[in-house]
This record gives sequence, C-alpha cells and structure tokens, in this order.
Amino acid sequence: MKSSPYRPEWTEKAPPPGTYRSIFKYGDPHRFKHPSDAWYNMIKQEFGLSDQDFSSRSREGLEPVSLQRPPNLSSHQIEFLQKIVGGENVALDDYSRVKYASGKTTEEMLEMRHGIIREVADVVVHPRDKEDVQKIVDYCNREKIPITVFSAGSSVNFGCRPVRGGISLVVSTHMNKLLDVNELNQTARVQPGMFGPAYENALNQAPELFQTKHRYTCGHFPQSFEYSTVGGWIVTLGSGQASTYYGDACDIVFSQEYVTPAGTFKTLDFPATATGPKVNDIMKGSEGTFGILVEVTMKIFRYRPENRERFSFMYPTWDAAVDASREIMQSEFGKPAIYRISDPEETDRGLKLYGMPGLADTLLNWRGFKPMQRCLCLGNVEGDRDYTKLVARKIKAVARRYGAISLTGYAARKWEHTRYTEPFMREDLGDYDILIDTLEAAVTWDNLHRVHQGVRACVKNRPATMCLTHASHFYPQGTNLYFIFIVHMKDVEEFRKFQRGIIDSIQHHGGSLSHHHGVGRMIGPWMERHLGKEQMDVLRALKKHFDPQGIMNPGGQLGLD
Amino acid sequence: MKSSPYRPEWTEKAPPPGTYRSIFKYGDPHRFKHPSDAWYNMIKQEFGLSDQDFSSRSREGLEPVSLQRPPNLSSHQIEFLQKIVGGENVALDDYSRVKYASGKTTEEMLEMRHGIIREVADVVVHPRDKEDVQKIVDYCNREKIPITVFSAGSSVNFGCRPVRGGISLVVSTHMNKLLDVNELNQTARVQPGMFGPAYENALNQAPELFQTKHRYTCGHFPQSFEYSTVGGWIVTLGSGQASTYYGDACDIVFSQEYVTPAGTFKTLDFPATATGPKVNDIMKGSEGTFGILVEVTMKIFRYRPENRERFSFMYPTWDAAVDASREIMQSEFGKPAIYRISDPEETDRGLKLYGMPGLADTLLNWRGFKPMQRCLCLGNVEGDRDYTKLVARKIKAVARRYGAISLTGYAARKWEHTRYTEPFMREDLGDYDILIDTLEAAVTWDNLHRVHQGVRACVKNRPATMCLTHASHFYPQGTNLYFIFIVHMKDVEEFRKFQRGIIDSIQHHGGSLSHHHGVGRMIGPWMERHLGKEQMDVLRALKKHFDPQGIMNPGGQLGLD
Repeated sequence: MKSSPYRPEWTEKAPPPGTYRSIFKYGDPHRFKHPSDAWYNMIKQEFGLSDQDFSSRSREGLEPVSLQRPPNLSSHQIEFLQKIVGGENVALDDYSRVKYASGKTTEEMLEMRHGIIREVADVVVHPRDKEDVQKIVDYCNREKIPITVFSAGSSVNFGCRPVRGGISLVVSTHMNKLLDVNELNQTARVQPGMFGPAYENALNQAPELFQTKHRYTCGHFPQSFEYSTVGGWIVTLGSGQASTYYGDACDIVFSQEYVTPAGTFKTLDFPATATGPKVNDIMKGSEGTFGILVEVTMKIFRYRPENRERFSFMYPTWDAAVDASREIMQSEFGKPAIYRISDPEETDRGLKLYGMPGLADTLLNWRGFKPMQRCLCLGNVEGDRDYTKLVARKIKAVARRYGAISLTGYAARKWEHTRYTEPFMREDLGDYDILIDTLEAAVTWDNLHRVHQGVRACVKNRPATMCLTHASHFYPQGTNLYFIFIVHMKDVEEFRKFQRGIIDSIQHHGGSLSHHHGVGRMIGPWMERHLGKEQMDVLRALKKHFDPQGIMNPGGQLGLD
Repeated sequence: MKSSPYRPEWTEKAPPPGTYRSIFKYGDPHRFKHPSDAWYNMIKQEFGLSDQDFSSRSREGLEPVSLQRPPNLSSHQIEFLQKIVGGENVALDDYSRVKYASGKTTEEMLEMRHGIIREVADVVVHPRDKEDVQKIVDYCNREKIPITVFSAGSSVNFGCRPVRGGISLVVSTHMNKLLDVNELNQTARVQPGMFGPAYENALNQAPELFQTKHRYTCGHFPQSFEYSTVGGWIVTLGSGQASTYYGDACDIVFSQEYVTPAGTFKTLDFPATATGPKVNDIMKGSEGTFGILVEVTMKIFRYRPENRERFSFMYPTWDAAVDASREIMQSEFGKPAIYRISDPEETDRGLKLYGMPGLADTLLNWRGFKPMQRCLCLGNVEGDRDYTKLVARKIKAVARRYGAISLTGYAARKWEHTRYTEPFMREDLGDYDILIDTLEAAVTWDNLHRVHQGVRACVKNRPATMCLTHASHFYPQGTNLYFIFIVHMKDVEEFRKFQRGIIDSIQHHGGSLSHHHGVGRMIGPWMERHLGKEQMDVLRALKKHFDPQGIMNPGGQLGLD
C-alpha cells in the first residue's frame, strides 16, 4: 500500500476577529482554497524545498491589531461628523482604522504578518447616502480634512491607503443598493458600494424585483468580482473576464454622479453626444482624486446563460496562439465573451494545477504539443443563440487553421468553476513564505512579444522564480499581458525591490503601466515618465480644479501629489 | 400629347471664381443635384407657390467678395508668419479671408447671398507640417494672436468663424496624407486635413500602397464625407452613417497628437489602459479650443464590400419602427452598419423624392401601410460573410414580428447612391428662397417620442413648414433624431429666430444639444444650461490649462468664452 503523500497543514480556521490576518485574508473568512498536491510538489521542486520546510508556519498575523496612534482630528471635528452620519457610523477604534486603510497587495499582507502598519485615517465614516457624502465633502473642504474612499478594499496598489490621515470614507456599508432598472434603455441605476454578486443577482432577478420582461446581466466579472464593488470598477478602470465582448468598465458606464469639492453633478443620460469633451469620460479612472462617485447608471445586457458556448484549444506554440487570437479579433464575425490564452509556462503549470492525466499529456506530446511550447486557449461566447453558435464555430475554424486542437468546452467549464478562487491560495502559501503576486500591462499586437519576453526575462533573472503569463482581454488593436510571479521570499524590502523592478521592466519594454489594476500609489511614481509631463499636467489641472485644497485621496494617488 | 411640365431654371453653372456663391456652394463647384419634378410640385403645393414664383431667382450671391477691412496684424507679425511657413502659404486677400472664415450653415448661405460678411481672420496661413503648427502656436501664444482652425469647412455651427480675428489656420492644404498603415494593429496614422474619399481610397488600396495583406476601410461615412476631413471628424465628435456598427468618430480614434499652448503631446498607443483619466478622450470634441490636432492614429477595419447585405422594410407605424429597432439593438445578435428609420412625414416625402410608382403606393395602402403613418427602414450589414448573413436574417425576423414588410435591398441600394448628394439641392432651392436646414439630438429610448413629438410640434407651429425626421445612429440605450426642416423664407433674422427656437425646443424636451454636429458658436449659448455649471466649469478649467491666453478658437466656441 502506497502511503498518502505529505500535505502541509493548510489553515482551515477563520482568522480570529481583531487580528491582522482577519484584515489581510482574502474574501469570506470561512472560505479557503488550498494548493493541489501537484502544485505543492511543483513548488517544492522549483524552490528547492522539502516537506520539512512546510512543517511549521511562518508569521501568520494572528496578533490583535494594535495601533497606538491617537486620532489627529479634534473632538469638535469628530462630533461634527457624528452629527452628519449618526454616531453609529463613525468609528475611531484601532481595528477599523487599520482595516479601512488596507488593500490586498502582497506587500501589505507581508507587512501585516510582521505587524507593520502604514498610514491610517484618523476616523472611519460610513455615509448613509449621497446627501451625507455631500455634507462630509463640504465640511472637509472647509476644514482641510483629507478623505480617502474605501469601498471593497480589493485594491492591489494602495489605492485606499489614507496617506495624509483624515477620513476613511466607507461607501459599501450603506450605499450598496440597486435603485432601479430601466428596461427600455437597458440601464441600471446603482449605488457605488454594491458588491458584484448582489448586483448581478438582482439583475438576474429583474423580472421578480423590477417587473422587467427580460433577465439581465452586468457583463463585468473581474477576478475580484465577489469582493469588489460597482463604483470601484469604474473609478479604477477595471476590466471583467468577459470584457472582450461586454467592454471594460469604462465602456459599460452610462452616466455618473459625483460629489467633489468643486460641486456635485450628474452627467447626462445620452447614448452619445457631440457637446464637447465628455465629462462622463473625464471622471472615469480618477481613483477618488477628483471626487466621490455617489451614483452610477450602468448599461446592462440580456442574461441568457443557456446560449453560452464554451471552447478550449491547445495551440502548438505561443506565436500560433497569438496570431490566431489576433485573426479572431480582427475578422469581424462577432466576439467571444471570455477569451484567454496562456503562455507555455502558465499552460504547463496550469495543467499540473488542474491535474491533467498522464495519458492526456502523452497524447498531446505525441501529437506534437510539447511542454513549454504548447499554449492553452479557453473561453466562451454569450448573446443571442444563433450568434453564439456562429462565433464559436468561427473561432474553431481559425484555431484549426493555426494548428490548434480542440479540447472541447471541458477546460473552459472547469476554469469557470475556479475563476474567482485563485486569490484564496495566497494566504496558504504565504504561511510558508511563498509569495504570489501579479502585474499587468496593455500591449498593441506589434509590441506583444517584446513586452512578454522582456518582462519574463526580468522576472526570470531572479533564480527560482516562476512566471505565468496570460492574455485575457482582447481588442482588434491588441490585448493585455497578465504576469503572475511566484517567489520564495521572506523579506519585505527584497520583495518590494523585486516587484518594482518588474514595473520598471514593463515600462521599459513599452507596455502600459496598467491594463486594469489601476494606478493607486504603487504605480504613481511611474506615471509622469509614462504619460509625459504634458499629459500629467492635464491630470494635475483637473485635480486642481476639482480639489483645490488637495483633500481628495491625497498623497501620491495617480502620481498627482 | 401631354406638354412637359414646367421646370425652374436650376443653376447648372459653376459659380464664377471670387464670388460669394463660390464660397457658400456645397462641394465640387461643377456638381449639381436638382430637386425632382415630384419634389418641385410638392414644394409649390406646401408653400402655396406657383411656377411664376420660380420664374426668376432671388439673390444668387454672384457678386465678387469685397471685404474692405485691412488686416489688424502688424507687418512684422505677418513677416514672421511668412518666415515660418513660406510666403506662398500666407494669404491676406479678401477672398481667402472670407472663404476660410465660412462654414456651411444655412444662415451663412443666406447672409452671403446678401453680401453680409461676419468676422474674418486677419491672415490665412497654410502650415506645411506639425513643426509649422508648433512654431505658429508658440508665436501666437507669445503675441496673443487668436488662431481658428479651418480644415474642410463643412461646419454647420460657425465652428471655423474667427470671431476674434487673428489667423485662419488651414490644415487641409498640406497636412492631408495617410502616413502609414500598421496591419498588425489594424491602425492607420493620418494627418488631420485628409479628406474622406482620399483616406478611404488609400485604405481600400492598402495592399498596393502599403503592402498589406488585406484591404481596409475607415468605417466613417458622414453625409459630409466628401467634403470633411479626418481631423474634423474627431474634434467635433462626428458620426458616420455606418456608426451603428463601426462606432462614432470618438470610438474609432486610437491615439492623437496635439499642439497646444501648454505643450505638444501624443497620447499613447494602447488598446486600453487603467492609468487614470484618459487624455486621449479628454481631447475628443475640443473643437479647436484646447489645441490643434496634428496627427491621429485611427482604428481601421477590413474592407469586404462583397459581404454587404442590404435590407429595407416598411413598418405600419412609427411606434412599430421604433420598437423593432430597439429590439434589434438590444438582442445581441450583432449589429447592422447602416440602419435608419424615417418618420411618417420623411417616409412619404422621401417616397415622392425617389419617385415611388403609383402602383406600389396603392399596394402599400391596400396592405394597410397608410400615408403619414407608415415608416421606411433601410440599412446594410458589413463584416464577415456569415456574420452579415446572420444579422440580416435576424433583422428581417424582428421586422416581421413588428408588422413590417420587406422591400428587399432595393431602397437601401438606391439610398446609397444618393447618400452624399442631398446637400447639393440646397443652393437650387435657396435661389427661390426655399431654405433647408437640419438640427439633431441624441435621445434615450424612453425619451424618444417626447423629443420627436415636441420638436415636431415646435417646427410645425409655423404654418407651411415641412419637418422630416429620421433616426440613423443606433445604440442599445437609444438613438439620434435628425430633424430636417424646410421653409419658404427670405429674411435672415426671421430664419435665425425660427432656427434658434428649435434648439430651445430640443433642449426643453430633453434631447442632447447635438448628437454629431458638434457645438461651435451656434449651440454654444445653450451649453451651460444643458450641462450645468459644474460640468461647464470642468471644460473651462481644461480650457484655462491648455490655453491660458485664450488664443485657441476663441469667441464662443463650445460656449467657453
């Protein structure tokens, strides 16, 4: 009898309330996803580790959060805020101040394991509605109190870090409702702090909730879907996994209402206009530096999951996968919703992760699809039934022309089941000093290989480092590159230096600084070199207009100050 | 024997060079399109006119342009400009100054027939390249000399009227080349002053001119296509007739290079980015008030006219046509390229214009498609062959469900032949004091009928006035309404009052001030009421940033100053 393999004791307990871990743990405190045996073995092999190295956990961050920094606001100011929103919506305790100052970067997780806390706000305020927000902004503008908005806190670039103190304004506590669905216009009016699943479920249930004829979908499904909000999607210029069809967050916005120090306004509801530069566009991606998004009207789409067509292919090489994908995006036979290609390293490690049977591997090899050359492609098509069939058929034809074999819809279906769960592995691995992080860039087709090769070389320059790359948001003019790097590393400073080096490399090779993660304070320092002084001056001019006192998410956000 | 009907002596001669008419005549001086006999009869009937009223022409504007306003620039300034661009590219003569100050509004045509000239520039300058533009802007910024850009002059809102004098900068004289085609990225780099046909022909001929594998199309075909330029499309937020599929001008722009008093910059070439508010978007629709567009990279599309599927339908009512169109745009089976529906008045007058045989009319009547109720729909589908077939089939199925009968592709084909020629009739009719003009608005589906009925009522409130309306740019969230009004009127002031009243009505009923004509100086005064002070303040802040001296297209453009 074969003895069962060694498995590290992955954490299966929700972090105790009040601890650092309860802040940095991803998602539902009671939900876990552990690395598969195959992944565990791969990690040991890559990093030269043994079971012994996984016998006891590194720092787990199980200590209670302790800040010991008294709030800097006067009691008069705090009372005033309490008067606006009610005492129960103002928090001064250490835990709240740290929790609502934190995002989900690997760096923050690492620091919290060591009990390191960066800047926090003096007070946490939960506005009940847009009138509250208006009063708070007016007051803070008079009193020069900084405001940093926190919605779901899924930021991976210190986007909600209150660098100048002041207020953490939490919009997801109360401002999280779907206000109405306009079926004629196919739009939904929604509050910014509504989480993805609540929003999507309400749209799916629109006939019951809003007496509509059709069911609807929001069309926006980022990996952080379960732990991100509608407002966050917009102000950070996010992209969902089905963006190739539905568009990026910026494309799905119909109109927006903002409270800014320079006034409150709602952009107009028109499907198009030729009335000068569009303020609706200007506000997208402002990451809280111009003002606070208090309501948004989103485009919605008919929900017909029964029409979904899934596909997956194996391409012999990365070049073939890229060329075929370009042909698919430029052929104008319609677009897939989800569409992803994995580079050779991601393909092979992914196959391990999902546990590809040895027989399948042998078969693929025999057919000429070699490890570290072959590339996985998967996705689906949504829309009208005849449309989804046509597009799926067309994609298959192109794939064949470029030497791919179909793996049927199986891989796509399997991927869909785990599409939101990968981030859950991060804590498990972090318990043994294995760090997973991601950086990403947009590229035109003619620069894709340069960025891919250049950034990979930079990551791989560090010995024993995994680098998995995929492209998952496609346009006729190009795509994105999503780099996942995995290292065995303890030291925060070492990690920071390594990670910042990758940003340098993306910039150096001509990728955009971000395709959909946004800028925050992490990428801020690169912005001026990236956009050039003239374009940064435009953003600075807008900042000065909206926020002359510099109270809106100040301290490096977007590289503005 | 029946005597042949009376026909007015429509002008068949190119206007003599140097005359007012040579400026206000639309398009090629040697090209004409006369009203059909049926239209002539309809006009007589509508306006209670007889053949006698068409026996002699009103003021034709055949006098030589005479300005008698010496340029206000110093000889030193003019010499400096001559040094920059060369003497041959600086013009000071009356004719040039008037020509390059004029657009194509009905009001300007009417005024020119009376020899009335509004503001002109002191000097006309034809830059050779972007370096010239840069030097001119630098110099003018120092010397506070206003610059108004003129490209093709098809503006219908005084967009190129040099209200503060200074320079008319003509970018179409030299800066009119297609610089390159990037087939991998499916983009074309083009100078702003390139006219539609030259641009489209070069893309169609890309295999021969740029050694590409495929032929390409620009996807942008406004009615002014032959007499408008790529740069103009972008800075005024234009829409082409095939915008329902290809997108509006703002959607087709990939990146742009601008010369502004605050510096010169090119936005980055990425298919998407999450690096803050997009300067590429901020510049679109700036109508020359922020700076001068000197180069643009456009998205291009595969040119496959052989795949085009045409359709046309008659709907029993306007409601049925609107409801079916909404269903088509929201069903997600793909989109038609051209898609138009005409309201009952446009349908009936259009059938007259195209000379529908009496038999067809009887037949339609008999089938229940009554005059002044029935509505014409026509269009086509472009793209991959299987895609165009699917979309055409789907459109037909929806049309049937809403009670329409197919008129085959005939009407669409017939319309395509005349799609650019309607404006040519304007001079003919103007010779007998019949004025045709247009105003337009964007609407959401839930406000379409209110705007349509309200604006029609406003137009019809004046006795003996025709009002033809169509919707021709469709989105899942709404469409545009394009109002063509025809009056028998001599007096400029009366016309102005009437026309401005229609703008009031559009605003009052909740339409956008413009779907694709832009703002210019005509719509400028309505902007603040439309957008609200807060949003106008955003545009003013940008204006102040880019152009602190107020030299860029100053004097009411966009309602900014």
